[in-house]
Amino acid sequence: MHICLVIFDGLTALDAIGGYEVLARLPGAELDFVAPAAGVIAADTRRLGIMAYKKLADIERTDILYLPGGPGAVALQEDEDFLSQLRRLDATSSHTVGICTGVGLLAAAGLLEGRRATTNWFFRTQLRARGVEVVDERVVRDGKYLTGAGVSASIDAGLTLANDWAGEDVGRMLQLGLEYYPRPPFPDASPADVPARLQEMVRTFGGGLSRLARTPPWL
Amino acid sequence: MHICLVIFDGLTALDAIGGYEVLARLPGAELDFVAPAAGVIAADTRRLGIMAYKKLADIERTDILYLPGGPGAVALQEDEDFLSQLRRLDATSSHTVGICTGVGLLAAAGLLEGRRATTNWFFRTQLRARGVEVVDERVVRDGKYLTGAGVSASIDAGLTLANDWAGEDVGRMLQLGLEYYPRPPFPDASPADVPARLQEMVRTFGGGLSRLARTPPWL
Repeated sequence: MHICLVIFDGLTALDAIGGYEVLARLPGAELDFVAPAAGVIAADTRRLGIMAYKKLADIERTDILYLPGGPGAVALQEDEDFLSQLRRLDATSSHTVGICTGVGLLAAAGLLEGRRATTNWFFRTQLRARGVEVVDERVVRDGKYLTGAGVSASIDAGLTLANDWAGEDVGRMLQLGLEYYPRPPFPDASPADVPARLQEMVRTFGGGLSRLARTPPWL
Repeated sequence: MHICLVIFDGLTALDAIGGYEVLARLPGAELDFVAPAAGVIAADTRRLGIMAYKKLADIERTDILYLPGGPGAVALQEDEDFLSQLRRLDATSSHTVGICTGVGLLAAAGLLEGRRATTNWFFRTQLRARGVEVVDERVVRDGKYLTGAGVSASIDAGLTLANDWAGEDVGRMLQLGLEYYPRPPFPDASPADVPARLQEMVRTFGGGLSRLARTPPWL
């Protein structure tokens, strides 16, 4: 079973790593980190580089196509070459997964029209504008499409997919392996619980596009 | 403010990335991925490579010293050169953080003797054998030492440290940025809730040492 985890310049790493940490451990799974061009891919902070050892054009087919988000996803929404690779691989997949603004990439490729999906809390209007029925949930399934809310929802989405793919025993074992019994130190249970002044500050910084101008320290 | 995130062959990536995703976004933070030798470091699955662009010996001082765990941490517990680098940097830090079996590295370096700490659910006996008072909690603080349970506890530990370092407003903003309002799909609330037969299977595979014999696909 092949998992194609697509990464790109300016991704938010946890969008990818939360799902990777679950899915790479599925029995029989072979997971590849794949990018438009092979090499070390810089995350949005410019302080982390992740190795992409295959390029998108070289992947013929995949069972699970997985798209993280991040500020770098914004520019890719307009990249027709990239979107056509997504369409091509989606046509071969049993499951297609989008996390955070990565859901916007699936929508930009025309894969989510009329479907139910979730995304990052501050990206919902943009997703709706692409004809997606946006649902206020952490993980949403519609047919073969599985979407997750922001960043850390990648773990919940990964475990949901593990349960679908390999059953509840494997899912619970993977949850134990990751010791995913969260105890966040603050009482907020959803974005709506965060005071509006803090929400506004996160919206302002959340895009993080200005950071992408920095050169990563390994270049 | 400098954060030295130490990575090594055979780490469990989410141990590192959960904390990174919070701490790299702290105001004024400069986070570096550092390894015994610079280069692309292979995670325990052998399917993920993370760039270490500095080597431990070149870091003179740091404010936050951060150790993830993983099967690769087991061999490092016997590596006196590595442990002496940890002792040297710990002597300069305001906070020293261990996650999962990374707590075992701090203990092997002699930094946790007589202190309260937590670690991965299946590593507690080994940690106790190093003279650590092992506590059944997800995140434990004792003086400047902050320890986290397994893998995904890195996020909880990162947010706890963000709160200590920069206050509750920043902590809640970072939690919102990561949309860390978890909804795991299974009802287990702690390792103890998982049936013994599944616990045993995770213990058997959990070390993951056999995987480390595989050559990463980029080599």
